[in-house]
Amino acid sequence: MDIRDQFRFEAVGSRIEDLETPVPLIDIGIVERNLRRWQERCDKAKFVNRPHIKTHKLVPLARQQLALGASGITVQKLGEAEVMADAGIGDMLLTFNVVGRHKLERLAALARRTAIKVVADSAEVIEGLAEAGKAAGRSLSVLIECDTGAHRNGVQSPADALALAQRLDRTRGLRYGGLLTYPKTGARAQAAAFFSEARQLLQAAGLETEIVSTGGTPEMWRDDGLEPVNEYRAGTYVFNDRSLAERGACGFADCGLTVLATVVSRPAADRALIDAGSKSLTSDLLGLTGYGVVHDLGDARVYEVNEEHGYLDISQTAAKPRVGDLVRIVPNHVCPVMNLFDRVVVIDGNEVLGAVKVDARGMVQ
Amino acid sequence: MDIRDQFRFEAVGSRIEDLETPVPLIDIGIVERNLRRWQERCDKAKFVNRPHIKTHKLVPLARQQLALGASGITVQKLGEAEVMADAGIGDMLLTFNVVGRHKLERLAALARRTAIKVVADSAEVIEGLAEAGKAAGRSLSVLIECDTGAHRNGVQSPADALALAQRLDRTRGLRYGGLLTYPKTGARAQAAAFFSEARQLLQAAGLETEIVSTGGTPEMWRDDGLEPVNEYRAGTYVFNDRSLAERGACGFADCGLTVLATVVSRPAADRALIDAGSKSLTSDLLGLTGYGVVHDLGDARVYEVNEEHGYLDISQTAAKPRVGDLVRIVPNHVCPVMNLFDRVVVIDGNEVLGAVKVDARGMVQ
Repeated sequence: MDIRDQFRFEAVGSRIEDLETPVPLIDIGIVERNLRRWQERCDKAKFVNRPHIKTHKLVPLARQQLALGASGITVQKLGEAEVMADAGIGDMLLTFNVVGRHKLERLAALARRTAIKVVADSAEVIEGLAEAGKAAGRSLSVLIECDTGAHRNGVQSPADALALAQRLDRTRGLRYGGLLTYPKTGARAQAAAFFSEARQLLQAAGLETEIVSTGGTPEMWRDDGLEPVNEYRAGTYVFNDRSLAERGACGFADCGLTVLATVVSRPAADRALIDAGSKSLTSDLLGLTGYGVVHDLGDARVYEVNEEHGYLDISQTAAKPRVGDLVRIVPNHVCPVMNLFDRVVVIDGNEVLGAVKVDARGMVQ
Repeated sequence: MDIRDQFRFEAVGSRIEDLETPVPLIDIGIVERNLRRWQERCDKAKFVNRPHIKTHKLVPLARQQLALGASGITVQKLGEAEVMADAGIGDMLLTFNVVGRHKLERLAALARRTAIKVVADSAEVIEGLAEAGKAAGRSLSVLIECDTGAHRNGVQSPADALALAQRLDRTRGLRYGGLLTYPKTGARAQAAAFFSEARQLLQAAGLETEIVSTGGTPEMWRDDGLEPVNEYRAGTYVFNDRSLAERGACGFADCGLTVLATVVSRPAADRALIDAGSKSLTSDLLGLTGYGVVHDLGDARVYEVNEEHGYLDISQTAAKPRVGDLVRIVPNHVCPVMNLFDRVVVIDGNEVLGAVKVDARGMVQ
C-alpha cells in the first residue's frame, strides 16, 4: 500500500506558503524511504522489526510500518497502546513498567483484546502484572528489562534476570517472554555480554529465551555487537532529527520532519525572531548547541528559545530573512516535538497533502 | 466569587492516591492566595493588573483573575486569544507580532468581537495590522514593543519607538496605544530609562503615552525601577515553580502546581525511576540542576529525564520510596508543563476536586 493512502487528510490548501505557523511538516517521501530502508535491513539481518511509535504517535504510520513487514509495534505508555488498539493494531510490546491499580485494570482490558506483551524488572511489578493476567483470563508474556549500562531501570545483573525469570515462570497468569534493554549508546558490547550470560543461565535453568530485544536509533545501522539480539525497537528513524544527523546516524537529507515557522521580527542585523519557541521545538539540547537549524539560511541556528519565541542567529546568513518570511527548522529531538502538536501537516516535497491528528499526543498515562 | 466555583469539574474520585499518573495537580488554595496577594499589590501600587494566561491556559482562572480586579488579560498567541474570546473574555492584549495573511484575518475577526490590543516593533508589522484594523472596521490600539535589554524583539531605541509611534499615528485603522517591554531580569533601571526617554520624546511630538506595560514574575514584588510603568503582565505567579522559588521570588509553599508521579522502578539503592519524564516535566533547566524536586523525599532531585522516565536521586533520602509509591514533583518551569497536558487535576489541600481541560493547550498558532 502506498504510504500516502494510509492517511485521511484534512484540507489545509496545497501550498506550504499558505500554512499557518508554527507547524511540523512531515515529508512523506523521506519517511517512506526511512521506513523501507530499515525494514530491508531487518529482513536481511533476520531480526524482528518492532518499531517504537512514541516518535510519530500516528496510526497511519504504524499501519504502514506493519504493512512493510514490522511484526508488531512498541509503545511506551498504556495510553499509546489504547490508541493503537482502538485502531485495530493488536501486536504490541509495552516497554514501561505497569504499576498501580488503575493501570493494571487498563492493561487487563487491553490484554483481553490484543496480544500485548509487557516488561518487568522487579518482583513488585510482576505481582501487579499477575493480577492483570488473571483478570484478563490469559497468560501475559513478560520480558525482563535489563540495565546493560544505561543506568535507567532494569535488573542489574544476569543473575538477577535469571531470578526474576524464574519467579515469572512460577507465577500464574504470566510467562517468561525474553530479555529486553534500552542500551547505552556506545556500549553495545556490554549489552551483548549481559544478554549472552543471562541467556546461558536461563537455558541451564530450563528456560528458553524467545526474544532478545534492543532499541535505539543512534546505532541501528551498526552491525557489530548485536548478537544475541533478535528484535529491534527503533523509533526516531521514521523522521530522524538534528541530533542524529550531527552524530552521523543519518544525513540531514534523511530528516523527514521540519518545523515551519514565520519570521516575526528583525530587531537587529544578526538576529531574527521566529514564532516557534520551546512550546514548538522543546528545550531538548541532547548535547547540541542551539535548539534547531535552518539549512535554507546557511545553517542558521536557533540559539535561544522562550516559550513562543525562537532566536535565530543570522550573523552568517548571506540573504537575511525579512518579517513574514517562512523558515524550516530541523529540530534537535523530533519525538517530543510531535508530542506538542494536536495536528501536523504532511507534505510530499513541495506539495501539501493535508493535516492529520497526532493520535497518541499527550498519552503519558 | 469563590475560585472553586469557576470550575466545572470532571469526576476523578476524591483521593490523590487514586489518581492516574503522571498528572499536574493544581492546589486551588495556594492559587487563590497567589492571585489575591498580587491583585492587592497592584491595587496598592495603583498599576493595572493584566495577567498573562500563557501560564495557566485555563478559562476558569482567567475569569477569577478578572473577578478579583484584573483589568483584562494578556495572551501570547492568537489561538489563546480565540479560546478566551470564545469564553466571553473581551479585554485582551496580544503581546506577539501578528504576521501573515491568515493570522491577520483571524485578528480582524477577533477585533470585531473583542477589545483586543496588539503590539508592533516594525513598519512591516504595522502594515499588516492596518489591514486587519480596516477589515475589522474599527481602530486597533497598538503598543510599541521595546527591547530594553533582553535582546529579544522590540525597537532598539527611544528614537525608534518615536518613529514607529508616529507611523502608527498616521496609519488609518490603527492608533498608538503605549509602550511595552519584556524586561531583562536584573535590568529594570535600564527599562525605566528607556521608557522615560521614549515617553518624553513622544510627548514632545504631541503623542500621549497611555499605557506603559512591563512583565515578568521574577521581579514582580520589587518596588524599585517601576516608574513610569502603569501596567504589569505577570504570568507564572499564579502557580509559581522551582525556578522562582530557588531565585527567592516566592517560597516553595507558594508553588501551586506539582506533578504527581508513580515510582515504577527501584533498580539501585540511590535511584528511583518515576513515570514522569520530559513529556511531563519538559527539559527546561532555567539554569537549575535537575528537572524538579520532591520535598517529601528530602528534596530529592529528578537528575535526568528521558521522554517518559524521570530519574530520582534518592541517595540522600532517609525513607526510600518503593515501587508504586506516589511522589509530587515541583517542576522547574510551570508554563510549558501545563502545555503538555490535555487535562489537569485541581485539588484543595488533600482533597481532589476534579479534572479540568487545559483550554488553550497547544495554541501556538
